[in-house]
Amino acid sequence: MVPILDKEDFQFLQEGLPFYTQLEPAQQARLRQECARLSYRQGDKLHRGSQDCAGLMLVRSGRLRVYILSQSGREITLYRLLEWDICLFSAACIFRDINFEVWIEAERGSEVILIPTALFGELSQQNIAVADTVNHLIASRFSDVMWVMEQVLFMSFDKRLALFLLEQQAIEGSGQLELTHDMIANHLGTAREVVTRMLKYFQSEGMVRLSRGMIEIVDEGRLRALAG
Amino acid sequence: MVPILDKEDFQFLQEGLPFYTQLEPAQQARLRQECARLSYRQGDKLHRGSQDCAGLMLVRSGRLRVYILSQSGREITLYRLLEWDICLFSAACIFRDINFEVWIEAERGSEVILIPTALFGELSQQNIAVADTVNHLIASRFSDVMWVMEQVLFMSFDKRLALFLLEQQAIEGSGQLELTHDMIANHLGTAREVVTRMLKYFQSEGMVRLSRGMIEIVDEGRLRALAG
Repeated sequence: MVPILDKEDFQFLQEGLPFYTQLEPAQQARLRQECARLSYRQGDKLHRGSQDCAGLMLVRSGRLRVYILSQSGREITLYRLLEWDICLFSAACIFRDINFEVWIEAERGSEVILIPTALFGELSQQNIAVADTVNHLIASRFSDVMWVMEQVLFMSFDKRLALFLLEQQAIEGSGQLELTHDMIANHLGTAREVVTRMLKYFQSEGMVRLSRGMIEIVDEGRLRALAG
Repeated sequence: MVPILDKEDFQFLQEGLPFYTQLEPAQQARLRQECARLSYRQGDKLHRGSQDCAGLMLVRSGRLRVYILSQSGREITLYRLLEWDICLFSAACIFRDINFEVWIEAERGSEVILIPTALFGELSQQNIAVADTVNHLIASRFSDVMWVMEQVLFMSFDKRLALFLLEQQAIEGSGQLELTHDMIANHLGTAREVVTRMLKYFQSEGMVRLSRGMIEIVDEGRLRALAG
């Protein structure tokens, strides 16, 4: 059995769902009864393409990474989900016009509140506020993905890597980044060797300092200038 | 003044809009009065990023190409719109969660029926069937774009070019394709030299025959095998 929501989880759910106040009392009661809190360890897969369809997830804590995966195992990160974010594609099976597959993993230890697919499907059929939230989410994620696409297509790799390191610094709140070259390659959809070569160039230019499993930003200003 | 719809245009509009029968009589009357038929010549731009926001367009005839454009002028085709297709992003300004820019051009002489932005915005606020159509369209286009993204990221260029030539053959209904190497480069988001080199390789392998402004498919079976 999955853990039922405690009082604080349910409070979080009420605040986190834009449509909560517009649900009928009976619908609110079903959320209370049927939602569950799930815990994931760093690296756990929450969703693997069309193999999974657990339901809508509200991130309670931690960080999720949404990415696509090629047949040969290459990855590229589409976007991240942080506390209060809603994960739509873990319920992808209920949207008939969505016919692509994403993978979702916990980038660090994470807790989510799950609205199971059956319940979420019913609510989105019955309640216009739920449908409206879904539509805003799809349009926002579409915009996120277009941003990644423009980066991949139109931006040179040195700019992309500089931008990625600066984003990581903002997310972590520190310029000491625990990242392997493999992890960066998976985020940016490229080969590890390409990442290593560019990081060595950044180091030779005095922008970063490299050590095992760690990249330290030492000249943020120059990285910013490079990222444009 | 733009030409008002004649009887046949209006018939086409009624059949082409999935939500038409669910509109109020007064809303139907406004469509009759306020929609216009617009004609474009091959190469005309219908929509240029955030500079334009004419409204929803229903393709009456011809073919539109929707693409993104980099600051340096590089392009990549996202999808095409044919007769009966609805063009959503020519009304992008009314969707607040859509914050990317696309360009739209007539790939051949085309006619569209335009529902002006002001009217379309009102209808989508007032009528749930209109909002529903918009949501299905956004999700479908999202899927189209993810397909392009996976191709660009994960597929080698020889496969992509083979697939592109086969798609063109299907669209044109002919293996004699009037395409310059520049046009293909813009579709696929690459440099002309890369296209030329690969086409010459295809020719040396007996899959295509090249002449000025023309590519002829001579071994469809091998192209299909290459495209996978």
